[in-house]
Amino acid sequence: MQKGFIFDLDGTVYIDNQLIDGAKEAIEKLRKRGDKVVFLTNKSIETITAYVKKLRKLGIDVGWEHVINSNLLVAKYLSNRIHEGDKVMVIGEQPLIDELTAMGIPITDDETEASYVVLGWDRQFTYEKLNRAFQAWRNGATLLATNPDRTCPVEGGQIPDCGAMIGAMEGATGEKVELILGKPSPLAAKFIVEEILDLPPENCYIVGDRLETDIRMGNDYGMHSILVLTGITEKSMLRHSKYKPKYVINSIKEVPEITTDLDSKALGPLKK
Amino acid sequence: MQKGFIFDLDGTVYIDNQLIDGAKEAIEKLRKRGDKVVFLTNKSIETITAYVKKLRKLGIDVGWEHVINSNLLVAKYLSNRIHEGDKVMVIGEQPLIDELTAMGIPITDDETEASYVVLGWDRQFTYEKLNRAFQAWRNGATLLATNPDRTCPVEGGQIPDCGAMIGAMEGATGEKVELILGKPSPLAAKFIVEEILDLPPENCYIVGDRLETDIRMGNDYGMHSILVLTGITEKSMLRHSKYKPKYVINSIKEVPEITTDLDSKALGPLKK
Repeated sequence: MQKGFIFDLDGTVYIDNQLIDGAKEAIEKLRKRGDKVVFLTNKSIETITAYVKKLRKLGIDVGWEHVINSNLLVAKYLSNRIHEGDKVMVIGEQPLIDELTAMGIPITDDETEASYVVLGWDRQFTYEKLNRAFQAWRNGATLLATNPDRTCPVEGGQIPDCGAMIGAMEGATGEKVELILGKPSPLAAKFIVEEILDLPPENCYIVGDRLETDIRMGNDYGMHSILVLTGITEKSMLRHSKYKPKYVINSIKEVPEITTDLDSKALGPLKK
Repeated sequence: MQKGFIFDLDGTVYIDNQLIDGAKEAIEKLRKRGDKVVFLTNKSIETITAYVKKLRKLGIDVGWEHVINSNLLVAKYLSNRIHEGDKVMVIGEQPLIDELTAMGIPITDDETEASYVVLGWDRQFTYEKLNRAFQAWRNGATLLATNPDRTCPVEGGQIPDCGAMIGAMEGATGEKVELILGKPSPLAAKFIVEEILDLPPENCYIVGDRLETDIRMGNDYGMHSILVLTGITEKSMLRHSKYKPKYVINSIKEVPEITTDLDSKALGPLKK
């Protein structure tokens, strides 16, 4: 039976510029046996091209159609929804603007014109941008965001991610942002499973290092969730999390062997 | 019996640069009968001097000791707490920095040095400032904020206030800011009632136009709360709010007559 695999990138396939040991071989093994493989990241400050180049440089054969980021998810979502005359305000970096533009979505900086405001991680975020987005919301624009991540790991620590932009906006409006498109959004899961993998969710696996995004999305959408311990999550964090992976493995290397059939040979969620 | 009055400013005593009709006479009447009057604002982008000047220009006789803003509350709070070597990082505008400096509190921009981070309304807020405050928090600094207001009314609308800075920070940390010093903080109430008015709370009235700050603080601290309808709150909003004023009056003008003794002559909370 053909299976679909959604792999998270940073912490799962690579860490910074270092491929996780065995990642290349594991992915090749899955493809060789006929399974479909895609890559999904919440990060909104890189283009899909940059990810394709990076993966290829690390030895993983990949096409543009195999890489999905939260910018693409937002662009897809909006392209199905905007009507004649609708324009979109973007608080985010150039790759997000480029992805929307590539999909033919009209961009505006004018708070009186915007039907939607998209919030993405923006390292040039300012009060002026916040206020512009806030005024657009006051004028009736719908608020979307690329991804809910609070922080992004960087060398030596972490820095605020899109969660901070969402927080700033919610702090001003007193309302939740209408829709956050990246993991763990069920819309993201639906789009990838139905339109890219084209398989029933019960034939799909999500492999990632984050409980509240990767594992949660997999569980919520009826996929099989696999936690790898090469990223941000340590075994000890499992006990206190609401989001329990179906499988816990040391690294991506073990994915082919535990997914030879849908009766698990894995250890299952760790006890204690 | 001597009474204490805490008056909110914008929307209660004046709107922009226009005194509310009868405000001057009401305040003079209270003072003439021996009551104590102070003014309290959550706004952190003006100095106390600016408020004193403004009130005097509008005809209200007032000294520096009668005006309290959220910057002063933070400065007071920190001056009682910091120890030798403690330094404070400020995300906010110059009046907040000045108030802390005047109280002898050492300021730092260095994320490795800060024991506290104070968040105030900052119209020059940037990602770089957010990240600096976030790194200070990661290094163990305690987060405080001047005031919880989501927005500040301006001509023709409203713009994001300190609530947006708090939201941005909480969006990154995933934790609540430790303490917000302005209204409705019980620490603010305690400081004003005990140290400035020096009266029991049951002899004190808070008069303001905002349910979730003025009225809530008064009720929580055992004062008498009086809502004026000259500001942001309309009668229709009372029904859905958790925060019910003891008295509802049209404007500050009516304060002396409804507070001649502590058996109310006021209408009480509006029905319906």
